[in-house]
Amino acid sequence: MRKAVVLLSGGMDSATTAAIAKDEGYELYAISFDYGQRHARELESAKAAAASLGAAGHLIIAFDMRGIGGSALTDEIDVPLDRKTDEMAEGIPVTYVPARNTIFLSFALAYAETLGAFDIFIGVGQVDYSGYPDCRAEFIESFERTANLATKAGVEGKGKLRIHAPLVSLGKADTIRRGLELGVDYSLTWSCYVGSEKACGRCDSCRLRLAGFAAAGAVDPLEYA
Amino acid sequence: MRKAVVLLSGGMDSATTAAIAKDEGYELYAISFDYGQRHARELESAKAAAASLGAAGHLIIAFDMRGIGGSALTDEIDVPLDRKTDEMAEGIPVTYVPARNTIFLSFALAYAETLGAFDIFIGVGQVDYSGYPDCRAEFIESFERTANLATKAGVEGKGKLRIHAPLVSLGKADTIRRGLELGVDYSLTWSCYVGSEKACGRCDSCRLRLAGFAAAGAVDPLEYA
Repeated sequence: MRKAVVLLSGGMDSATTAAIAKDEGYELYAISFDYGQRHARELESAKAAAASLGAAGHLIIAFDMRGIGGSALTDEIDVPLDRKTDEMAEGIPVTYVPARNTIFLSFALAYAETLGAFDIFIGVGQVDYSGYPDCRAEFIESFERTANLATKAGVEGKGKLRIHAPLVSLGKADTIRRGLELGVDYSLTWSCYVGSEKACGRCDSCRLRLAGFAAAGAVDPLEYA
Repeated sequence: MRKAVVLLSGGMDSATTAAIAKDEGYELYAISFDYGQRHARELESAKAAAASLGAAGHLIIAFDMRGIGGSALTDEIDVPLDRKTDEMAEGIPVTYVPARNTIFLSFALAYAETLGAFDIFIGVGQVDYSGYPDCRAEFIESFERTANLATKAGVEGKGKLRIHAPLVSLGKADTIRRGLELGVDYSLTWSCYVGSEKACGRCDSCRLRLAGFAAAGAVDPLEYA
């Protein structure tokens, strides 16, 4: 069985991506990050999602991005609330975390290399998204090229490292439809940036999620404040 | 004054690279990594080198690569000793740490973005080296391209992120000569992989260092076991 490393944040996109990888026949090795995020409770969702998907391994890497800061998710900056989708489309918001997906993919690459895996799955999308540069296809393609130059696995030519981003061109509604087909339990996922007891329903991440469920004609099983 | 982020391992190459960046007029922000390496004592050398160079900041990021393993530097694998330079040139040795420079550069990228810096210096070289794929110019160039696609700093076009690798085409002897010209205090640096009280003189890293000092006609100020 081919192994794949799947970045699992605990959110709905990464859970859907993991279900797609499983459906494609991969044995799943999840990787998650405890990086000082405001909404560290997403890690509990990541663990639940990994278990629910029958992952063969789940590695949680801890480091502290609060020493770097520069983001509403890791620094003393307020998470913006109640923004409309067209506002989200204007520029890169303060919830952007500097170089986050580059860091996450780099660790996934190390994990893949040690496992002998050549496939890494990441749940980025550039349709209904928050304007983060590291969620775009051209970033993913460039990282894939770098990965093949960076590693023993890439250089020795036993296989080509591939970064799969199956949601990159899917809107949230299509992502949710695909996930529901595959039996993803969205009650186990967590999207809210604020990280309180219940999802806020007001941050960009909650709003994109709720709009996606509405457009898919489905009910979001999460409780909102 | 332009800011630069400099990867500072505590070794002689990164100390020389930092001195070059300083000589080019940058204000230095050092970054080092406590990643579960066998030779964590190199971090004391990194702190000493940062102080000696007058760095304006020094960030140490801690994470544990022992959960990933796959290297003699982070796993229960012996560090090879007494290898000749031509043996080192054959293949990628067990001291290779999966995706290490990709991870390190990703954190440096995050730090640079938060500081408003567009220049990152890394002391990789591909002349007298251990065959690590992530020390080669083509990897550095590809990472630079990825960095500009990954970040707000790169995408907003206020500047181009540059990864400087001033030693990439220099042999160890030339590196040492350049460092001595710039006043680098090599007694503050640490290269040995084994991480005992004194440098072993037998691992690849010690052997490359000693051969470099000999070829430069200089005396290595470190004590060897």
